[in-house]
Amino acid sequence: MTTLVIGANGQIGRQFCELAETAALPIRAMIRDAGQRAWFDERGIDTVVADLEGELRHAFDGCDQVIFTAGSGPHTGPDKTLMIDLFGAIRAIDLACERGLSRFLMVSAMRAEDPLEAPEKLRPYMAAKYAADAHLRASAVPHVILKPGRLIDQPASQRVATSLTETGGENSVSRANVAYALRHLVQSRDLIGREYVLLDGERPIAEALC
Amino acid sequence: MTTLVIGANGQIGRQFCELAETAALPIRAMIRDAGQRAWFDERGIDTVVADLEGELRHAFDGCDQVIFTAGSGPHTGPDKTLMIDLFGAIRAIDLACERGLSRFLMVSAMRAEDPLEAPEKLRPYMAAKYAADAHLRASAVPHVILKPGRLIDQPASQRVATSLTETGGENSVSRANVAYALRHLVQSRDLIGREYVLLDGERPIAEALC
Repeated sequence: MTTLVIGANGQIGRQFCELAETAALPIRAMIRDAGQRAWFDERGIDTVVADLEGELRHAFDGCDQVIFTAGSGPHTGPDKTLMIDLFGAIRAIDLACERGLSRFLMVSAMRAEDPLEAPEKLRPYMAAKYAADAHLRASAVPHVILKPGRLIDQPASQRVATSLTETGGENSVSRANVAYALRHLVQSRDLIGREYVLLDGERPIAEALC
Repeated sequence: MTTLVIGANGQIGRQFCELAETAALPIRAMIRDAGQRAWFDERGIDTVVADLEGELRHAFDGCDQVIFTAGSGPHTGPDKTLMIDLFGAIRAIDLACERGLSRFLMVSAMRAEDPLEAPEKLRPYMAAKYAADAHLRASAVPHVILKPGRLIDQPASQRVATSLTETGGENSVSRANVAYALRHLVQSRDLIGREYVLLDGERPIAEALC
């Protein structure tokens, strides 16, 4: 019952991997090159070197679910948004289908369902997330889509909300809380076909994501 | 039985519109702003002002099929590839489904089915086309996907091929031949669920695309 973590070396990915390791959840951290391995080795986390723009198939061997939390990030251009956030996600979804995986946990973004409503600078990114989410919904793989708000660096409160109404319009969520939410989702194997907005809030994660 | 032409003001779009007008095929040319209207007015071609990144819905009124030949083109960046080639296509496909249109004719690109095999510079574009095509295939709207090779400016030979084997590896096709191919597809309403590579070649269009 190993979970492949795509985007393991990212900010959310690393925090999730540490939580999973501590909870003894079987995971495999997918990293792009062996130079990223030391951090994971030190923590006893299994890794596989694979590339969303290259050799990918072998990373899925022996895994039965996937977390996709890869993102090209703010330091690359929209060409990488197309190759990673969009096409990397599509490749991972198609492989998950082909292998008959039990679940695909997608880290998307709040308001990805309406890219034209986003601030102009964010629209191309939201368009990529929209298309990746749509591809997942149309696929045969059981899935959960998590839609965090604006990501911030704060310690985990482990208290969340799932709508702007609930937060009175506050739209941020700590990456640490996203990592805890992912740990909860990985453990809650009966959750399928769900989509959750995720914000910092007042409710325990297990109560909010059910 | 009006065909909405999305991307009408593009190089293929204009040539197709002229052919359709000459053949008395009912079309509506979708243009982004009224300043593009004169060229169409001079030729007696009906237009509608609509925007793939804005108000779009009204353009579909009274139409029963769609040609999507819009492209952000080589003079804009991959942010526009995301907004036009990917998300604009997705919006048009979703509207075509919602309206129950009889067909969606997509102008894609040869090898869009394998973006990682394209030269590196073209990969983000091919990823967008891959995702748009996949969205169309997964949709409920009957469709045809046309995949031209490398586009060149030559007069229409009206002779085409549908594989590199057939051309001995020659990978180009004139925009004029693509326009003629679209005219043929618009008239051939029984063609559904087909995908064709399109190259300059030796066969009459009606024989190659059947």
